[in-house]
Amino acid sequence: MFDFTATYTDQYQLAMAQVYFENGHKDHRSVFDYFFRKLPFEGGYAVFSGLEDLLEIIENLSFDKKDIAYLEQTGFSEKFLNYLRDFKFQGSVYSVKEGDVVFPTRPVLQIEANIIEAQIVETLLLNLLNFQTLIATKASRMRLVSGDRHLLDFGLRRAQGPGGYYATRAAITGGFDGTSNVVAARNFDIPVSGTMAHSFVQSYDNEIDAFRSFAKGRPENCVLLVDTYNTLNSGVPNAIKIAKEMEERGQKLLAIRLDSGDLAYFAKESRKLLDKAGLEYVKIAASNQLDEYVIKSLLEQQAPIDIFGVGTNLVTGNPDSALDGVYKLAESNGKPRIKLSESLAKVTLPHKKQVFRIKNSSGQCVGADAIGLRSESRIEEMFHPFEPYKSMKLQNFEQEPLLHEVMKNGKSLVEKQSLKDIADYSLSRLAELPIEYKRFNNPHIYKVGISSALREDRDKLIKEYKQLS
Amino acid sequence: MFDFTATYTDQYQLAMAQVYFENGHKDHRSVFDYFFRKLPFEGGYAVFSGLEDLLEIIENLSFDKKDIAYLEQTGFSEKFLNYLRDFKFQGSVYSVKEGDVVFPTRPVLQIEANIIEAQIVETLLLNLLNFQTLIATKASRMRLVSGDRHLLDFGLRRAQGPGGYYATRAAITGGFDGTSNVVAARNFDIPVSGTMAHSFVQSYDNEIDAFRSFAKGRPENCVLLVDTYNTLNSGVPNAIKIAKEMEERGQKLLAIRLDSGDLAYFAKESRKLLDKAGLEYVKIAASNQLDEYVIKSLLEQQAPIDIFGVGTNLVTGNPDSALDGVYKLAESNGKPRIKLSESLAKVTLPHKKQVFRIKNSSGQCVGADAIGLRSESRIEEMFHPFEPYKSMKLQNFEQEPLLHEVMKNGKSLVEKQSLKDIADYSLSRLAELPIEYKRFNNPHIYKVGISSALREDRDKLIKEYKQLS
Repeated sequence: MFDFTATYTDQYQLAMAQVYFENGHKDHRSVFDYFFRKLPFEGGYAVFSGLEDLLEIIENLSFDKKDIAYLEQTGFSEKFLNYLRDFKFQGSVYSVKEGDVVFPTRPVLQIEANIIEAQIVETLLLNLLNFQTLIATKASRMRLVSGDRHLLDFGLRRAQGPGGYYATRAAITGGFDGTSNVVAARNFDIPVSGTMAHSFVQSYDNEIDAFRSFAKGRPENCVLLVDTYNTLNSGVPNAIKIAKEMEERGQKLLAIRLDSGDLAYFAKESRKLLDKAGLEYVKIAASNQLDEYVIKSLLEQQAPIDIFGVGTNLVTGNPDSALDGVYKLAESNGKPRIKLSESLAKVTLPHKKQVFRIKNSSGQCVGADAIGLRSESRIEEMFHPFEPYKSMKLQNFEQEPLLHEVMKNGKSLVEKQSLKDIADYSLSRLAELPIEYKRFNNPHIYKVGISSALREDRDKLIKEYKQLS
Repeated sequence: MFDFTATYTDQYQLAMAQVYFENGHKDHRSVFDYFFRKLPFEGGYAVFSGLEDLLEIIENLSFDKKDIAYLEQTGFSEKFLNYLRDFKFQGSVYSVKEGDVVFPTRPVLQIEANIIEAQIVETLLLNLLNFQTLIATKASRMRLVSGDRHLLDFGLRRAQGPGGYYATRAAITGGFDGTSNVVAARNFDIPVSGTMAHSFVQSYDNEIDAFRSFAKGRPENCVLLVDTYNTLNSGVPNAIKIAKEMEERGQKLLAIRLDSGDLAYFAKESRKLLDKAGLEYVKIAASNQLDEYVIKSLLEQQAPIDIFGVGTNLVTGNPDSALDGVYKLAESNGKPRIKLSESLAKVTLPHKKQVFRIKNSSGQCVGADAIGLRSESRIEEMFHPFEPYKSMKLQNFEQEPLLHEVMKNGKSLVEKQSLKDIADYSLSRLAELPIEYKRFNNPHIYKVGISSALREDRDKLIKEYKQLS
């Protein structure tokens, strides 16, 4: 396919870079904010994911020979290409921890680097973080409604091409237990699972032969797919026969799987048949167009399903296909910068910044983050960014800084974590969040405020910029 | 990242494969149909894309050392792993041509191979074809409403991770002219374009300096982004000044770009200002949350936009995140196979098949495809698959076979085509399609029928299978 070299970017990054290189701006230090404007799924929070992949790729980013040859052919200057031959990202990155709960319109990550480095990594950064955060958030919503039931990613076949690779990783950071995706399981050390397709049953002359052959060949974690012909008249009764044969060999059938029809009804009826046969230990797995709403509904109906296999809606984030994350200039060559907009709510914030999560004395989130200058260690009072009469005193609250230096001079400072650790961290952060931010319908809005120092500078810049135009 | 080795698959393919290997079924020849059930975007057609990538990957597919070591560790048997060490896909593929117009519930592609080979490539095949067909279809819809205006893919930053690579390829097969995605442009030989971001303008102390610096550094195909501060009061007037300076140097400004606000209004007002300054040749490019509906509306309002840059909605297929393509067993070890379903419309079709596009004597599609056995060279009468009283005589129609052998014994038979050739073919096929299948709202349904031979066998199998269950 392709490697992640520095041409995994938009052409305009390179066009701008050549101009910066040739007009002497190339060493201008710049600061960019990564943030998003809108939560996906009409939800109340998002789960930040993709950081480790991003840092690993940035740390090793370069233009290879094929890249340079291609750029030469498309008309970039020889001097600039010589610069690109030695290109290496040498900047710093400040970021929220992977797995943390994040909200719109406040920096999730800040990059400081020379302007060329900062631009070249923009596309890559947005591409990886927007997508993994979308999927981790989707996975987290399913985890929240599923309690301790087993959640499996079955999505590779419906994923957006090789996007499925990172979808699987993000699903695990958001709380899924395992995947059917072998290459992702291999590279990210994820529990892998999968047993049989309808085609397996069909390839035999009858269902019981197919089941028997499978149970003999793969007795460990054996799951029989019972809906190829008729779930309750043939699939489940045949699975029961095989489970009894397995018992005679000292083995246990792990589960049956339902993949069509009314899952609540079939799960209940199957459970009855299994229990009547003394197979209380045989679990029920279900799949087929699941998402957080369907899982919630199935459990509200007390469908006795132990394992959910989720495909399309997990790995593509359906119905939201993208997080709208952006990357905005906050400082250039030592000067603070903003981007104006017709809508005040879209004006960006200047400077190197810190984001504080406001908590009460028992460590619970109170429903607000405050943004200050990076030089501020605490914020005394925070102001609504666009409604000047609204403010909130913060003296009596704990303030947890969310942005940590994760890369310095191009070297990652983050120790490798298991995905399970990231998922556990995410769950612990969600536990600090009051329940009204986690509900699906009209969740409470997690507030944001800015410090008076940041507000003053921002307002001064707005005035200056309006005179410019 | 990862290579496309044979572990780009679902675990159950390997679990089933081991059982087939060990119970002596491994050389059972099997036939699988690839088809989808529902058109994306509530549209009337889809554009088939991804075939060349699929064949190239399948032709070279194997398990590498890392794969084998991983599978060993997850418990596959040594004998089976020895088989996988030499695994190679040696089957045949029959397919619709890439770029052709396709419809639901009829085979787009058929695979014939031993059962293990056919299963291992299933996930890969669905992953690549479902996604590229989704995106090529989306691109085609934008091409249809845009006439000969220039369409550019700007989506990489919002794509689903590395899915963006194939999204760009599919966008070109569906009729886009170019992309900002450098690595895709490099590998697929696509025209690449891109000039400046808002951050470029912001990094200078004022807009005119930014424009001047850019125009001097990159005078070829120069596009100035005019909405950083105030489009009509500063952006366009500054761009006009720069265009005049370029004229003095014997250069021409290619275009200005609008990326926010009311694009119809700003395009019209900008056009007036440019024309008044004698800059009729300077084009207007527009971007910002475009899709086929917005483009259609802009052109209905006679917005003088020459170039559209499309991102998220193109590369993710929003609001449809996946084509629901499936892969169903049609024959196993010489025996025809079907999959039953509670709904008759979901019962699959057995046998090796051919699909004929029915045309009138002037080569126009009449709005129906007919499915027969592969051994049938023509179909005299076709029958509605689920409504026995409906049939259509076909003697007086041309019948174009759509499925061609594209791979034989694991070797691709398809000559490398340029994406432009695929796109041109697609447009020529769309031209044969009556307009009522191409409209956005409630398009006419392209019919499907089956031959009497296929119908008889299918109905016989349904009866047999119902007795089984």
